[in-house]
Amino acid sequence: MATNSLIDLKSLSPKFQDLYAKAKDFVENDCIPAEKVFAAQMGQNENRWKIIPPVLEELKTKARSLGLWNLFLGRDYGTFGAGLTNVEYGLIAELTVTTYIYIFYNVGRSSLAPEAMNCSAPDTGNMEVFAKYGTKAQQERWLKPLLNGKIRSAFAMTEPAVASSDATNIETNIRREGNEYVINGRKWWISGAGDPRCAVYLVMGKSDPDNSNRHKQQSLVIVPADTLGIDVVRPMQVFGFDDAPEGHCEIVFKDVRVPVENIILGEGRGFEVIQGRLGPGRIHHCMRCIGKAERALELMLARVTDPSKRTFGKSLSEHGTIVADIANSRIEIDQSRFLVLSAARKIDQVGAKGAKKEISMAKIAVPNMLLTVVDRAMQAHGAAGISQDTPLAGFFVRARTLRYADGPDEVHRNQLGNNELRRAAEIVERMKMQKAKSDALVAKL
Amino acid sequence: MATNSLIDLKSLSPKFQDLYAKAKDFVENDCIPAEKVFAAQMGQNENRWKIIPPVLEELKTKARSLGLWNLFLGRDYGTFGAGLTNVEYGLIAELTVTTYIYIFYNVGRSSLAPEAMNCSAPDTGNMEVFAKYGTKAQQERWLKPLLNGKIRSAFAMTEPAVASSDATNIETNIRREGNEYVINGRKWWISGAGDPRCAVYLVMGKSDPDNSNRHKQQSLVIVPADTLGIDVVRPMQVFGFDDAPEGHCEIVFKDVRVPVENIILGEGRGFEVIQGRLGPGRIHHCMRCIGKAERALELMLARVTDPSKRTFGKSLSEHGTIVADIANSRIEIDQSRFLVLSAARKIDQVGAKGAKKEISMAKIAVPNMLLTVVDRAMQAHGAAGISQDTPLAGFFVRARTLRYADGPDEVHRNQLGNNELRRAAEIVERMKMQKAKSDALVAKL
Amino acid sequence: MATNSLIDLKSLSPKFQDLYAKAKDFVENDCIPAEKVFAAQMGQNENRWKIIPPVLEELKTKARSLGLWNLFLGRDYGTFGAGLTNVEYGLIAELTVTTYIYIFYNVGRSSLAPEAMNCSAPDTGNMEVFAKYGTKAQQERWLKPLLNGKIRSAFAMTEPAVASSDATNIETNIRREGNEYVINGRKWWISGAGDPRCAVYLVMGKSDPDNSNRHKQQSLVIVPADTLGIDVVRPMQVFGFDDAPEGHCEIVFKDVRVPVENIILGEGRGFEVIQGRLGPGRIHHCMRCIGKAERALELMLARVTDPSKRTFGKSLSEHGTIVADIANSRIEIDQSRFLVLSAARKIDQVGAKGAKKEISMAKIAVPNMLLTVVDRAMQAHGAAGISQDTPLAGFFVRARTLRYADGPDEVHRNQLGNNELRRAAEIVERMKMQKAKSDALVAKL
Amino acid sequence: MATNSLIDLKSLSPKFQDLYAKAKDFVENDCIPAEKVFAAQMGQNENRWKIIPPVLEELKTKARSLGLWNLFLGRDYGTFGAGLTNVEYGLIAELTVTTYIYIFYNVGRSSLAPEAMNCSAPDTGNMEVFAKYGTKAQQERWLKPLLNGKIRSAFAMTEPAVASSDATNIETNIRREGNEYVINGRKWWISGAGDPRCAVYLVMGKSDPDNSNRHKQQSLVIVPADTLGIDVVRPMQVFGFDDAPEGHCEIVFKDVRVPVENIILGEGRGFEVIQGRLGPGRIHHCMRCIGKAERALELMLARVTDPSKRTFGKSLSEHGTIVADIANSRIEIDQSRFLVLSAARKIDQVGAKGAKKEISMAKIAVPNMLLTVVDRAMQAHGAAGISQDTPLAGFFVRARTLRYADGPDEVHRNQLGNNELRRAAEIVERMKMQKAKSDALVAKL
Repeated sequence: MATNSLIDLKSLSPKFQDLYAKAKDFVENDCIPAEKVFAAQMGQNENRWKIIPPVLEELKTKARSLGLWNLFLGRDYGTFGAGLTNVEYGLIAELTVTTYIYIFYNVGRSSLAPEAMNCSAPDTGNMEVFAKYGTKAQQERWLKPLLNGKIRSAFAMTEPAVASSDATNIETNIRREGNEYVINGRKWWISGAGDPRCAVYLVMGKSDPDNSNRHKQQSLVIVPADTLGIDVVRPMQVFGFDDAPEGHCEIVFKDVRVPVENIILGEGRGFEVIQGRLGPGRIHHCMRCIGKAERALELMLARVTDPSKRTFGKSLSEHGTIVADIANSRIEIDQSRFLVLSAARKIDQVGAKGAKKEISMAKIAVPNMLLTVVDRAMQAHGAAGISQDTPLAGFFVRARTLRYADGPDEVHRNQLGNNELRRAAEIVERMKMQKAKSDALVAKL
Repeated sequence: MATNSLIDLKSLSPKFQDLYAKAKDFVENDCIPAEKVFAAQMGQNENRWKIIPPVLEELKTKARSLGLWNLFLGRDYGTFGAGLTNVEYGLIAELTVTTYIYIFYNVGRSSLAPEAMNCSAPDTGNMEVFAKYGTKAQQERWLKPLLNGKIRSAFAMTEPAVASSDATNIETNIRREGNEYVINGRKWWISGAGDPRCAVYLVMGKSDPDNSNRHKQQSLVIVPADTLGIDVVRPMQVFGFDDAPEGHCEIVFKDVRVPVENIILGEGRGFEVIQGRLGPGRIHHCMRCIGKAERALELMLARVTDPSKRTFGKSLSEHGTIVADIANSRIEIDQSRFLVLSAARKIDQVGAKGAKKEISMAKIAVPNMLLTVVDRAMQAHGAAGISQDTPLAGFFVRARTLRYADGPDEVHRNQLGNNELRRAAEIVERMKMQKAKSDALVAKL
Repeated sequence: MATNSLIDLKSLSPKFQDLYAKAKDFVENDCIPAEKVFAAQMGQNENRWKIIPPVLEELKTKARSLGLWNLFLGRDYGTFGAGLTNVEYGLIAELTVTTYIYIFYNVGRSSLAPEAMNCSAPDTGNMEVFAKYGTKAQQERWLKPLLNGKIRSAFAMTEPAVASSDATNIETNIRREGNEYVINGRKWWISGAGDPRCAVYLVMGKSDPDNSNRHKQQSLVIVPADTLGIDVVRPMQVFGFDDAPEGHCEIVFKDVRVPVENIILGEGRGFEVIQGRLGPGRIHHCMRCIGKAERALELMLARVTDPSKRTFGKSLSEHGTIVADIANSRIEIDQSRFLVLSAARKIDQVGAKGAKKEISMAKIAVPNMLLTVVDRAMQAHGAAGISQDTPLAGFFVRARTLRYADGPDEVHRNQLGNNELRRAAEIVERMKMQKAKSDALVAKL
Repeated sequence: MATNSLIDLKSLSPKFQDLYAKAKDFVENDCIPAEKVFAAQMGQNENRWKIIPPVLEELKTKARSLGLWNLFLGRDYGTFGAGLTNVEYGLIAELTVTTYIYIFYNVGRSSLAPEAMNCSAPDTGNMEVFAKYGTKAQQERWLKPLLNGKIRSAFAMTEPAVASSDATNIETNIRREGNEYVINGRKWWISGAGDPRCAVYLVMGKSDPDNSNRHKQQSLVIVPADTLGIDVVRPMQVFGFDDAPEGHCEIVFKDVRVPVENIILGEGRGFEVIQGRLGPGRIHHCMRCIGKAERALELMLARVTDPSKRTFGKSLSEHGTIVADIANSRIEIDQSRFLVLSAARKIDQVGAKGAKKEISMAKIAVPNMLLTVVDRAMQAHGAAGISQDTPLAGFFVRARTLRYADGPDEVHRNQLGNNELRRAAEIVERMKMQKAKSDALVAKL
């Protein structure tokens, strides 16, 4: 954590400080050096989707033994969770950026640290759903193995046929027939669905498409990944990355049947669930972005001082535009971190719903900041900066993706702007009173 | 103070919370309504430089009686000061933006609130110098009336003939002759020198131009404003504002003589003094910028919801680009406030010298943010936005000025970038160790 | 003219080339050196609004004798005009930027060259109106002295009470009573109305406020400046500049009466007139902006190579960020010039109406470019850059003003974007056909 | 070609207009529909590097029969070339953007049209080298089959071990031994080297590393691709794309021997050759960027008007920020095209050397513009915009690459800025003369 933060590490509990130090050590000294091993153990060609490198399980075992496990589940989750505040977990999340040395072919995403610590999306959000809204039976069946890192999961919302940034457009059909729901629809960008360990989907769709309240048309149902009628069509690419073995898949659901017990919370309550799901997750994404931005800046600092990379008689670090780029990156990263921690703290104080404004602010600002910081680091690296030899291209496309994921910039910006506009009436009133007072004073002159 | 700050008002002392509330009330209910009175009492033409509107003294009396006096002098200043931390005074400084209703001719700057509370530059920095480095006699003669708001003062550093952003270039000559210093040189942008109450200058110049250490060539001497040989040539304009009655003046010093007792700290120690002077002052400027940005946004919110200003069948607040502008301003203001408070806190913790990096970050980011936020507010106002009917143009040019004042962006950016570059060696070392560990693991596969 | 233009000076007629050379010589060797004279001859205080410096008339006489007179009136204006194309006059307009050396107090605008050549706004647009839409009698009474540079004029459209960027909001009342129109309303930003030579206003207002076609509610009437009931309330300020002696005035029309013959074109045709008036004028503004940007860059080049302005052991021109700023300015200026000349050429080919898109493009891009280029030049000048010692602050605020004048950025951007959107149908059609063809080919594989 | 260009298609020769129409028809109606065929015919996994889809040869045959062949070789190349001007070929190059419909897996680059017309890099630059500097024997052996589209070629300059943006750093060793050159070194980003048809490399390296003139240390030698000692190590990735089957490869040359006749132009003349090679090629890249930007805008227009993609009750095209994005893209594309055509015309007039400034301007501005325009189009597409279902991600990474290729932004910007700085002396002189004249006039008052 940067020393100039408004939140001092020292002001946090000794217990947390200890956990933080352990996490830092685990990421730096276990996860990062394991990346090359992970790469070496990955499959080739088709096997890229079938083999999970064994090193990952070793890291998970170690993390668990160190108590670095399921830290994302905060106090609200009772005994399921590690009991950290959102600020605390945010600071941990910043650490869990690996892909530092990144020298293998076509792996756009290393989530060694988050996955090793059982804190990687989309499992985190799904576990939150099961913990918060699941029945005992659902928790036993799905939450328990997820919490134990035995299976993985996916969240099936986005659809190719509609503008999914307005979630009321989602149109996968969920029809009740007797004791079953029958699901028909096409989804895409279903992250994690390519993973051989992915055992379950949470599927969003319309169970009541004619409800006059557009926010009550949707339901969320649990669909085991091996149910008949599911066709994983292809992995979507993010720029040129397919993110094997996890993948972001296009999936067709054709007459897929699940028992009615698989509903989450109840029919027509899909929106309620997804709105509860997104707040903290956005903050975690943002804090990992901060971590990536710090890494990108570190890589840039290392590169521009590399004595073998001089141009026109100077070290790159002696070029004024490079120094200015570094300074601007320093400022922008710190500003962004403040924004995220402020949102985390607001969640801690009043819950995710009350922190909507702060979450939107971080969600808009941070991925855009990361794009800028990474782009500067890229440019300083020469062509290496866009290749598989640094994690920069991976950071970049992940940040670019976050400008859509969990709501595009435009939607958040619109909400935030309209939120501010609600202050107008009070301001106008105050200005009127001040003007009246002022006029009275002048009249007396 | 915005509620999303990482520093909660509630976490500060009840005594400070009380002071804060009083300051807020005084600015909103006394200073802002008094602006029109100030304008009405100002002189016309030449008299603009001669008359100080009486309302100002009334406000000063009230502020003093409320305990809102000399708050800028923190704990370090012992009994001189009010004992606030930099964070606390920063929060007060944000409040002291008046120029809210702004309907008078050619007044680019209303500093009613800061001056009413005896917290306006350049007096603040000069009082710091006297308090920190002055002899008892100097303090008795100059600091006391300054602390009492009886006189005003100026700081004479910048020169037209050299690039003053590198202060070692300053070349006004300070020559010792017997028991006197003889001063010759031309200064400009000497803020406050136009004010009829300005009684004293602190003049920077070279007493030892041949010293091989460029940072020991300069001295700072006290020059009473009525000394023979001083010619206030003209007020400089900032865009079209001349900022009467204070003014930013060009001044020629021709064979100006002062007793040797008027040296501050000692010959050759001018740099030492100015370096001690600038830190907190920069933060105060920045916090007032935050306050101005909030005001600009408030004005924008009021304007775009004004039912009489509809275009093309819509309220301005229904145009998507306006809503996006508002959202972006909200984000940028909050990010900037975090940066300034973080710097203030660092000063509180380790002193201004140790907070150099954080001060530079705020100094670069904040005025540029203010320019952007004000520009958007201007555009939403139509032509009114650049006229004398709103304070926006005044905010804008003040922010533009701050991109030079106390060191131009470029100088701070260069320092900050080079500061980051010093981290490179440690990073390279760490990366090497991780690579070695990684190679060893792969070798074992 | 820059040598890299797509329009070579050499490809234009020898006659024009000769005129161009004469104009260049006149501006460089007569107008620019006369600026200090103009400043010295200006009045002080109230007289700033009463005295027109004699040097101006001398320059006018010389310009007229050289044939550098009324060049803005192109071929369309028959015998009134000089017969230049819009491209040709655009190239001349770029030259007519004076305010090069700019050392006098509070003059934000030198229009020595345009006014000396009788090509300064708002007279130019008004002459176009009289020439195109005026009756013989109107032309005799007003156009003739305007063409001879004997009087000046103003165009009264913008109003403080409504959002005038949507001109259908203009609400000054023009009521017919017998053989007279009675005018009541408040206008502001009426450029030139402060000038003692301003003899006539063209006033826009609602003669038929209930007409269901909002574009037929308005009329334009000729109002002699000395008519009873006109009160010039105050000059508006532009960032502190009042632009004396011309001024941009607030004016109240109270029961002002003019004969019905003073209508332009006919009742309800005000919109028709103003739409015909704006096209080429926007291009002239833009080309003067290009000229100002070139001047700003020249001043920057001179400044950063000034051997007396070294910082930190280097000439300013050796700092990498300065060099990059210069490069970016070079690119942006050239790009903008292309845009303006392209619009001018389109007007030459198909008239202003057909060139609406190109005019909007230039109108949006050019003032914004000028703001950026001037800001960089300012920053390189240190505080001198925002003072009365360079023309940069004047350039800046003029460019800022142009982001509202003749339609704000937002309105032009919206029109331009919607114009592009009309291409969508054709594109979709083409894509469909290509897809069909493609599918057929694949089916055959 | 956009109709608002300063260069009218109609002003060009009827013969060229005919060629232009044929090229347009061929790209739109043959190449674009063939893309899916190309995708279907590509190999899977390892075969992606081995199979060249047959449809390509069919397109080549058709292009050749239409006279759409080797158009890039202009007048300077005598009988080798098609005799087009750079402006003319630039206009053609803008057309040759295919990847319109783009629905296949992991193909980041479709160069169907350029390759079909035998105008694709790096072959174009290499053919220029052979044509301009090759001996008869070299031309017979390599240029002839290249001109006939029978083989492909690569240019091996960039190296991983040094900062290749300063080409004097290149350090591959070229040692003469008897009648042979022995080559040792490591290259990367060798575009086209993965193609099974790639028959020859032009290799840059140091033959005289101790020459005190750093620009005479380098030589360029012809290396047949099947020479012993060449190891194609791996394809480099560009944001996850490997651009099979062409590839941008890392290659090790170990004791590779070629006869001394394989030198181009002579020992120590490598720099001379590469400097002659780059000018027009940069323009071709830029014009294809313009074409891509137009395509990206077209895709955006189609997308935002798609009736199935409404959000929050509106078509995307009704959101103000989208309309503004479209307007800005329109402006920026047109500005960029002007810059490229201006550079092309300058090359036509005075050759590539004399047009260095204009080429740099285009080289800096155009790829950056493309990144911005594509990013907006992406955002309007939702997640589809970064996937394999549109060509946008491919456009983006290609544009990003061009910010390094043929000289990074920074190098061009630095050259351009310094070029402008050379004008300073003349400007200062002129300003001095004007000031003298001005002073004389004022003295007479």
